[in-house]
Amino acid sequence: MAGTDRTQALILGGPAVVLARPQLGENIGSAARAMLNFGLSDLRLVQPRQGWPNERAVAASSGAEEVISRARVFDSTPEALADLQHVYAATARPRDMEKMVLSAEEGAQRLHEHIARGDTAGVLFGPERTGLHNDELAMADAVIAIPANPGFASLNLAHSVLLIGYEWFLGAKHDETARGPVRRRGRRSGKAPNKEVLEMFAHLERELDAARFFWPNEKAKRMARNIRNMYLRAGLTEQDVRTMRGIIKALVEGNPRARRDYKD
Amino acid sequence: MAGTDRTQALILGGPAVVLARPQLGENIGSAARAMLNFGLSDLRLVQPRQGWPNERAVAASSGAEEVISRARVFDSTPEALADLQHVYAATARPRDMEKMVLSAEEGAQRLHEHIARGDTAGVLFGPERTGLHNDELAMADAVIAIPANPGFASLNLAHSVLLIGYEWFLGAKHDETARGPVRRRGRRSGKAPNKEVLEMFAHLERELDAARFFWPNEKAKRMARNIRNMYLRAGLTEQDVRTMRGIIKALVEGNPRARRDYKD
Repeated sequence: MAGTDRTQALILGGPAVVLARPQLGENIGSAARAMLNFGLSDLRLVQPRQGWPNERAVAASSGAEEVISRARVFDSTPEALADLQHVYAATARPRDMEKMVLSAEEGAQRLHEHIARGDTAGVLFGPERTGLHNDELAMADAVIAIPANPGFASLNLAHSVLLIGYEWFLGAKHDETARGPVRRRGRRSGKAPNKEVLEMFAHLERELDAARFFWPNEKAKRMARNIRNMYLRAGLTEQDVRTMRGIIKALVEGNPRARRDYKD
Repeated sequence: MAGTDRTQALILGGPAVVLARPQLGENIGSAARAMLNFGLSDLRLVQPRQGWPNERAVAASSGAEEVISRARVFDSTPEALADLQHVYAATARPRDMEKMVLSAEEGAQRLHEHIARGDTAGVLFGPERTGLHNDELAMADAVIAIPANPGFASLNLAHSVLLIGYEWFLGAKHDETARGPVRRRGRRSGKAPNKEVLEMFAHLERELDAARFFWPNEKAKRMARNIRNMYLRAGLTEQDVRTMRGIIKALVEGNPRARRDYKD
C-alpha cells in the first residue's frame, strides 16, 4: 500500500504519550488508535490497572498494532519519563502551582520545536477519575490545559490524547519533521533528561531536609514542589544540573554545621 | 454551582450533531460527553442500531444528562436534517463528488457565522464502519474533513464529534454567541431549510425522470447527485427554492411533450 511508507515516516519523531495508572483497557486502546490517527507511536504505561497486555485495549485500538505492540510498561512515573528532556502534563485543572499553562495548540508548537531540534519530549496524562498527583504535575515543565465547558470540563482520557495528537498533527503540516526522519535544524538544546533533573531534586531535598529547611512538617511536600517548579520553569540543561549539584555539594561541605548522618 | 449558568449559556445556539445509523450505544454516549465538554447539546440520532434509550450510551456519557435526555430519534436522515439551513458532512473520505471540503477549523468558523446570523446548522456523521452513503453526503452543503495519518485515517465516531466540538469551542472564544443567548449580528441569510431543498430536488428529479433525462439508467443516481451538489454549492435561499420550483413548473407546463402521468 502506498500509504505505508508515509505512515512510517509520520510516526517518527513524535512525542511520547505517557499514561499514568490508566484504569480501563478500553481507554488505552482508544488512546492508541487516536495516537496512530495522528502519527504518534511511543505509548508508555505506568502501572495499568488491568494489566498488560490487555485484550480490551487491543479491541478498542481498531488495528493500531504499531502502537499497542510497542507500548512499554513502567513501575513508576519517573521511570516512564526518565529519558525525556521535555515533559508536559495534560490536565484540565491547573492547580495552585506555579506552572506555565499552555493551550493544546501552543503545547503542540513547543513539542515540534523540541523535536525539530533533536530533543526528546512527551506528554503525561493522569488516570481517568483522579487525574495526576501533584507530585507528578511537579515533574512536568509546563501544563497543557485543554479549554472546555466550565460546567462539564472532564474529558475522557482517550479524548485528551486525541486532542493533543490532533494539534500535533496540524502543527506537523507546517513542519518538515513529520514528513521524514527527524531533521536537526539547529543545535540540540542540551536540556537535561527528566531522570537527571529528578535526581538533582532528590539530592537538593535530602540536603535541605538534613538542614531542617522543611518546616513546619505539614508544608514540606508543598515547599519541595514549589522549589521543583521554580527550577523546572528555568528549563535546566545537563550543564545546569551538573552546576546545581556542585553548588549543593559546595554549600553543604562548606557548612560545618551540616549533618552528615545520611548517604548520598 | 457557579459554573451552571455558564454551562447553560454555552449550550445555547450550537450546531446540531446528527448521527446517521450509529451502531454502538457506547459511541453515542461518548459523543454526548464530548458534545457537552464543548458546549453542544442538540443530538439527533437516525435509526440507532441498538435502539433508544440505551443504557450503554448513558454509562459512556459520564453524566452528560443534558445531551442524552434531549436526544431525538428520527427514521431517516432527511427528517433529522429537515429544519437545518446549513448542513456539513463530517467525513475523512471526500469521494468523487464536487463538494467543498473544509478543515475542522474552517467548518467551525462557518458554523459560528451561520449561528451568529440566527440560522440553524448541523453536522452529519456516518455510521462507524461504513460512513455516510453518497446520497447522504449529497444532502450536505460542504464536507468537513479531519486531516489524519494517511496510513491510518479512520477516526472513531465519538472522536470525530469531539474534534468538531473542540474546534467549535475554540471558535466560540472569539465569538460572543457562545457566551450568551444567540445574538443576531446582521440579517438572517434566508437560506432554505434542508427539507425545502430536498423537496425541490425531488420535484426536479421527477420531472427530469419523466422527460427521460436520466439515461443510461445505471448513471441516473450519480447524475442526480451531481445536480444536487451543483445547487447545494450555490447555498439556496428560500426565495431561490420558490424560484426554482416556478422554473421547473413553467418549463414542464410550457412543454407540450411533457408526460403528465404522475402526481406532484
